[in-house]
Amino acid sequence: MLFGGAAAGLGAIAALGIESLTSTTAPAEAADQLHGNTVIPFYGPHQAGIATEPQAHATYISLALRENLDRAAVQRLLRLLTDDAARLTQGQAALADTEPELGAVPARLTVTFGFGPKLVELAGSSAAGIQPLPKFSIDRLQERWNDGDLLLHIASDDQLTVAHAQRMLLKDARRFASVKWVQPGFRRSRGSEASGTTMRNLFGQVDGTVNPSPQTADFNALVWNPDGSTTMVIRRIQMDVDTWDEVDRSGREFSVGRTLANGAPTTGSQEHDEPDFEATNALGFTVIPAHAHIRRARSENPSERIFRRGYNYDEQPTGTDISDSGLIFVSYQQSVAKQFVPLQQRLAELDALNQWTTPIGSAVFLIPPGCAEGGFVGETLFKA
Amino acid sequence: MLFGGAAAGLGAIAALGIESLTSTTAPAEAADQLHGNTVIPFYGPHQAGIATEPQAHATYISLALRENLDRAAVQRLLRLLTDDAARLTQGQAALADTEPELGAVPARLTVTFGFGPKLVELAGSSAAGIQPLPKFSIDRLQERWNDGDLLLHIASDDQLTVAHAQRMLLKDARRFASVKWVQPGFRRSRGSEASGTTMRNLFGQVDGTVNPSPQTADFNALVWNPDGSTTMVIRRIQMDVDTWDEVDRSGREFSVGRTLANGAPTTGSQEHDEPDFEATNALGFTVIPAHAHIRRARSENPSERIFRRGYNYDEQPTGTDISDSGLIFVSYQQSVAKQFVPLQQRLAELDALNQWTTPIGSAVFLIPPGCAEGGFVGETLFKA
Ligand code: HEM
Ligand code: HEM
Repeated sequence: MLFGGAAAGLGAIAALGIESLTSTTAPAEAADQLHGNTVIPFYGPHQAGIATEPQAHATYISLALRENLDRAAVQRLLRLLTDDAARLTQGQAALADTEPELGAVPARLTVTFGFGPKLVELAGSSAAGIQPLPKFSIDRLQERWNDGDLLLHIASDDQLTVAHAQRMLLKDARRFASVKWVQPGFRRSRGSEASGTTMRNLFGQVDGTVNPSPQTADFNALVWNPDGSTTMVIRRIQMDVDTWDEVDRSGREFSVGRTLANGAPTTGSQEHDEPDFEATNALGFTVIPAHAHIRRARSENPSERIFRRGYNYDEQPTGTDISDSGLIFVSYQQSVAKQFVPLQQRLAELDALNQWTTPIGSAVFLIPPGCAEGGFVGETLFKA
Repeated sequence: MLFGGAAAGLGAIAALGIESLTSTTAPAEAADQLHGNTVIPFYGPHQAGIATEPQAHATYISLALRENLDRAAVQRLLRLLTDDAARLTQGQAALADTEPELGAVPARLTVTFGFGPKLVELAGSSAAGIQPLPKFSIDRLQERWNDGDLLLHIASDDQLTVAHAQRMLLKDARRFASVKWVQPGFRRSRGSEASGTTMRNLFGQVDGTVNPSPQTADFNALVWNPDGSTTMVIRRIQMDVDTWDEVDRSGREFSVGRTLANGAPTTGSQEHDEPDFEATNALGFTVIPAHAHIRRARSENPSERIFRRGYNYDEQPTGTDISDSGLIFVSYQQSVAKQFVPLQQRLAELDALNQWTTPIGSAVFLIPPGCAEGGFVGETLFKA
C-alpha cells in the first residue's frame, strides 16, 4: 500500500519536473526529498564525523584551555560539550539554546572532538602518539594555524546549522577556553552531484580516489584502535593556484599521475583504474614519473596507508591577490608515527606537487572513542 | 510511457528510503533529483540574481578600478566579464578556464554586475541616483566595507561553484581593478528545507516575510526601472548575538513584533498573517509596540517599499570572542532616494533592533539592465 502510494505520488512529481518538487505548492511527498532532517547517530563505539560520508560544510576549531584548569573542570567542560553535541546532532536544541529554531535542520550534523597533547596529559593518559609532527623541509608553519588543546570538528550539509552548532558549543566552552584558530571548509553541496562522487580540490583535481573505504575491513585495521579511538592530522596547505594555472594541462597531470578530466591514472581511462607504475612511453620513461604525487604517496607497505577526509578552503583575497585557497588536509590513522610520518616524509623529500603547495599549519589530535548515552567523549582517557 | 517508467523507478527508490536515492549505486532516475545541473538563463531584459529565488551561497565583491582607465578599457573589461559570466552560469568553462571541471556544476549560478558612481560617470551617464547614502545616526561605517566601483555578485547553491566563478572573474578583472572588499554569505542549503521557506538570520528570526514577490506586478513597479535597471543598497550590519541572547524570548519578539517560532506577527498565529498594529493588550498598550522593527519599517506609502534579498555572514571569531556575525543587508528598488532612504531614516530614528545591530559598511550600486547575446552588461549606459 505504502509502496503504491509513494510510487503514484513520486510519479506525479517526476512528471512535473524537478523544479516543482521544491516549490512551495509541491505535494506533501516532496518532504521525502528534503535532506534537512537526516540525522547521524551521535552515540556509539566511534565518534561520528570520520566514517560518515563527508558533509558539504565543515569547521575545525582549535581551542586553547585556560591556565590552571583542573581535571574536574575539564571533565565538566567535556560533559557539557558532549551533551550539547548529542542534542544538536539529533536536531534538538542545545541545553541553553537561545536560537533553538536554527538547530532544527541537522542535515547530517556531526560533532567530533579531538584532544591535543596537553589535554591528554591533563586527563592522566600518555600523549606520546600525538605530539606535534617532526619538522618537514617543506613546512612554512605559522604559529596561528598550529596545534591546540581541544578540537571541535563540526560538519553538516547546511552552513547555517554549522554556524549555530559552532556558536552553541563555543558558548559552552568560553569559560574554559579561548579560540586558537578556526578553519572553515567546503565540498560540493549535497545533491549537486551524486553522493559518493570523489571531491575536487581548488586545483580542479579529483582528490580522494585512493582512500580506504569505511565500508571495508581495511578501514578498521588502518583507522580505528581497539578501544575505538583514532588519531587525526590536520594540515593547512596553501595552494598557489596562480602558478599552477601557468602550467599546461599535461604538465599538471604529469605532476600527479592522474588526469584532470576524471581523475583516471594517466595509464588508464577510468577514475578507479589501477595505475600502472611500470608503463613506459615511446622514449622509455615511465608514464607516471618518479616524482608524481601518487607514486610518492603510495607505500610498498599497505599498513602504512591513511584515511584522508579533507576540505577546500577559500579565504577572501584583498588588493591585487585574487585568491587565498588551499586544502584543509585531514587524515585519520591508528598511528601517526607509523602511517602518516613516513608518508609525509617521503612527500617532503620528493613530490612534484610541492612546487605549488605549502603547509602553513599543522596539528595532531587524539580522537577519543565514542561514548554511550550518559557518558562523555574522552571519559575513558581519564585515569582514576 | 515515460510517466509510467519514472513512477516505477521512483517508487522503487521511495521503498528504499531517501538515502539510497543518492548512493553511488542508485538507479539512473536518481540523477533527476540532483540540482547541480540546474541553470538560470543569463541573457534577458533584467540581470539574473535579483528575481531569482536566493541561492544558498552568495559572494559580493567590490572592485576598485585602477586609475587612468579609459572608457574603451572599461568596455573591454565589461565584455570580458559578461562573456565569462554567460558561460559559467550555463555550466560551461570560462574563456581561459584553467579548471573547467570546477564549473561543470552550475547549481543555479548567477552573476550580477553593479556599477558604482565612478563607473557610471566614466560611462558618461548620470550617477545622481547612486551616490553614497546620507549619514545615519546609527552608522559606524568602516571604510574597508564601504563603496566601490564595480560590484560582482556571484551566487549558487554550490560553494565550490561560487569559488570557481569568483576566481575566473577576478582573473578577468585583475589587470583593470583591485579587490576592495569581499563579503561571502549564506542561507540554508538547497533541499535542506522546502524551497520558498523564508530564511532565518543569525538572531534566529524569520527574515524576509513581508517582501514584494518577484511573481507579482508590484515587484515590477517597485524594483525595475523602465530600461530594465534597478539600484542596489548593500549594508554590512553587525549583529551582537551575545547581548541579544541575554534578552528573554518575549523581549526579543517584542522588539520586532513577530514570534521567533514561526515569524507570525505577535498579533497572529501564522507567518503570513497580517499584523494588527491597532491591537492592544490588557493594559491598553499596542501589542506591537511603537518602536517594533516591523512597525517602523512599514511605510504608509506603499510605493516606498523595497525588495530585500540579504544573506547571513559569520566570520571566524578569535580569542575570547565566540562569533562575528551579522546580516549582509541587500535591497533592490527603483529609487534609493524615494524608497530606501526614508525607510532607513525612520529606522535610524527609532527601532528597537538598533540596540543589537550596527551598520559597519555601506554601498550603493546601479544594477544595469540585462543584455542580449553578443552585448555586455552596462552597454546602454555608455553614451556615444
Ligand atoms: C594541497 C596538497 C595536496 C594535494 C593538492 C593533493 C592531491 C592529490 C591528488 C589529486 C591525488 C590523486 C587522487 C587520489 O587518490 O586522491 C592524491 C593522492 C594521494 N595523496 Fe595527496 N594531495 C595533497 C597533499 C597530500 C598530503 C600532505 C598527503 C599525506 C601526507 C597526501 C597523501 C596522498 C595519498 C596517500 C594519495 C593516494 C596515493 C595512492 O594512489 O596510493 N596528499 N593527492
Ligand atoms: C541586522 C539588521 C536587521 C535585522 C536583524 C532585521 C530583521 C527583520 C525581521 C525579523 C523582520 C520581520 C520579518 C520580515 O518581514 O522580514 C524584518 C522586516 C523588515 N525589515 Fe528588517 N532587519 C534588519 C535591518 C533592516 C534594514 C536596514 C531595513 C531597511 C532599511 C529593514 C527593512 C525591513 C522591512 C521593510 C521589513 C518588513 C516590514 C513590514 O512588515 O512591512 N530591515 N526585518
